[in-house]
Amino acid sequence: MNRVFNFSAGPAAMPVEVLEQAQQELTCWGDTGASVMELSHRGKPFVGVAEQAERDLRELLAVPDDYEVLFLQGGATAQFNFIPQNLLGSASSCDYISTGQWSLKAIAEARKFAHVNVAASSESDNFSSAPSQSQLQLDSEAAYLHYTPNETIGGVEFGYVPDAGNVPLVADLSSTLLSRPLDVSRFGLIYAGAQKNIGPSGLVVVIVRKSLLGRANATLADAFNYEKQAAAGSMLNTPPTYAWYIAGLVFKWLLQRGGLTAMAEINKRKADKLYQAIDASGYYRNPVATDSRSWMNVPFICGDGSRDKAFLEQSEAAGLHALKGHRSVGGMRASIYNAMPEQGVDALIEFMAEFERVSS
Amino acid sequence: MNRVFNFSAGPAAMPVEVLEQAQQELTCWGDTGASVMELSHRGKPFVGVAEQAERDLRELLAVPDDYEVLFLQGGATAQFNFIPQNLLGSASSCDYISTGQWSLKAIAEARKFAHVNVAASSESDNFSSAPSQSQLQLDSEAAYLHYTPNETIGGVEFGYVPDAGNVPLVADLSSTLLSRPLDVSRFGLIYAGAQKNIGPSGLVVVIVRKSLLGRANATLADAFNYEKQAAAGSMLNTPPTYAWYIAGLVFKWLLQRGGLTAMAEINKRKADKLYQAIDASGYYRNPVATDSRSWMNVPFICGDGSRDKAFLEQSEAAGLHALKGHRSVGGMRASIYNAMPEQGVDALIEFMAEFERVSS
Repeated sequence: MNRVFNFSAGPAAMPVEVLEQAQQELTCWGDTGASVMELSHRGKPFVGVAEQAERDLRELLAVPDDYEVLFLQGGATAQFNFIPQNLLGSASSCDYISTGQWSLKAIAEARKFAHVNVAASSESDNFSSAPSQSQLQLDSEAAYLHYTPNETIGGVEFGYVPDAGNVPLVADLSSTLLSRPLDVSRFGLIYAGAQKNIGPSGLVVVIVRKSLLGRANATLADAFNYEKQAAAGSMLNTPPTYAWYIAGLVFKWLLQRGGLTAMAEINKRKADKLYQAIDASGYYRNPVATDSRSWMNVPFICGDGSRDKAFLEQSEAAGLHALKGHRSVGGMRASIYNAMPEQGVDALIEFMAEFERVSS
Repeated sequence: MNRVFNFSAGPAAMPVEVLEQAQQELTCWGDTGASVMELSHRGKPFVGVAEQAERDLRELLAVPDDYEVLFLQGGATAQFNFIPQNLLGSASSCDYISTGQWSLKAIAEARKFAHVNVAASSESDNFSSAPSQSQLQLDSEAAYLHYTPNETIGGVEFGYVPDAGNVPLVADLSSTLLSRPLDVSRFGLIYAGAQKNIGPSGLVVVIVRKSLLGRANATLADAFNYEKQAAAGSMLNTPPTYAWYIAGLVFKWLLQRGGLTAMAEINKRKADKLYQAIDASGYYRNPVATDSRSWMNVPFICGDGSRDKAFLEQSEAAGLHALKGHRSVGGMRASIYNAMPEQGVDALIEFMAEFERVSS
């Protein structure tokens, strides 16, 4: 059957070229006579896959040499707990910016270990904007400042990288990493669950400045001790090898397409035309402040909400998959990560216009 | 190219029928128009995959209704840390049996949270046997008794299930789960990294008696709080969906082959004939006490060790893959999990005889 345009927020659409290559070599990889998923993580063939993936990721993001790149498990959600355990050291407080559901989850886990100073929160405007730099009430003694550059559920994105002075900046980049260039040197630690722009779920990428390692608490699991995992090449325990391999294919796919500068251009164009279509219509509405709108996740409502069910049924039937908004907010959400082709966005815009026409 | 016979200890060989089905439907699963790895874990199609896998696993192991079945991340190694955090409650001590490298790792993580009473250790005989029930020095006040029914590196297996009285029994079944029937009701908690008999690495199955939940410590990550994950159907955070799907294919494969009773018969036959070949030869030697020999991992040395390199090169060239022993012990190791066909063991035995002939 034909593949649909998949607007799922994550696990999300993958590049079809990546899936086709994975399919071709699923039972036999290279000259190994085995599937990648059957290869020992300690054997030369898989170590080659793993190292190439790290090299390509470093190239894509121009990761400075004084940063470790880790391929771990547990997604971003588990790192919410492990980041304070790795970074607090003897500090008793850390700063968090609260811009939505994912910030709140990160804060809840951090509170298990330290006082959390909420440096800014957009909760009072129903998480529909990102605070500006001048609104941040930062603590210069904080162990780090954590924020969520893009809230996947609310579709709220920071248009800038916060300046935290000498305090290390930590960012949950799950939904935007690899969608555009990033100055990694601005951050102490960044992390991203793979299931949006990187690869299958079950893999999380952590990139951390080496000078921040060495302060983990004594009860942290070795498997999530970033210093120990860095020393072991992310193979202190058996890594999610197949997901790591698929991520490597995605990195190659991105390099072949001109890297993150090229992706940024396409992604901006995709987002711009979708927001323009929403704003130009009298029927659809995106609730987010225009300077905080996400390139990756575009939530919208139509009319008074009474036709949401019809919209979702008919769009699904038209080959536009998974447009349902997050269960906590309802409405619709189009996630348009790297792997969503521009034609998919065009098809959505066309469908929206026609749905508005017959609904009005 | 032809597929090899893959003796890797893990990630390990998968059933070729499973790989072929996964390959066929990799780009489009069912009528979704998307790959399984692109499906939202909250959508009906993937929830169906996940629930079917759990039902099939429950059927295979006859899991009693008062047990939760969890599909998590982090492998067994991470659970070494999370099990004490979930089970200790107000207890200050737990019992561990030490039979090799994996026991030692489990003990090291538990010591981060409690006093560990080593109820028995076979370290003095170089971990070449499992202690008998009468050798166990158990503490009736222990929070639980943990043991490693099969040590993957040493190839040492318990021929019995320890009796811990009223103390819950906890077992790392990474390398033996699904290799034969198991009376789950004897255990408080069992767990297994997927990459031996279940599916791709990055997935771990935890089966826990419901009455043991509810005593997690306050700083444990929600993503590894077994009670919270049970309440969320293992979807408190995004699960490793593709690995979960592959595990489901493996469960179906096992059911179609007659389940665990049928697998036990084949696995016993495979192990018996390999040990017989080793014992009958004057050239090969397995160092493990005969009553503690693993069905799954068969380590052996040949001659004085000087021909190990030749053995490994020539066996690899003959299509017998990954026979190298663990880096901590050297020599050879044949891992012969469910997916290793009997012909693979026959081919190994034949190769060993020929290698002995030209080496003697």
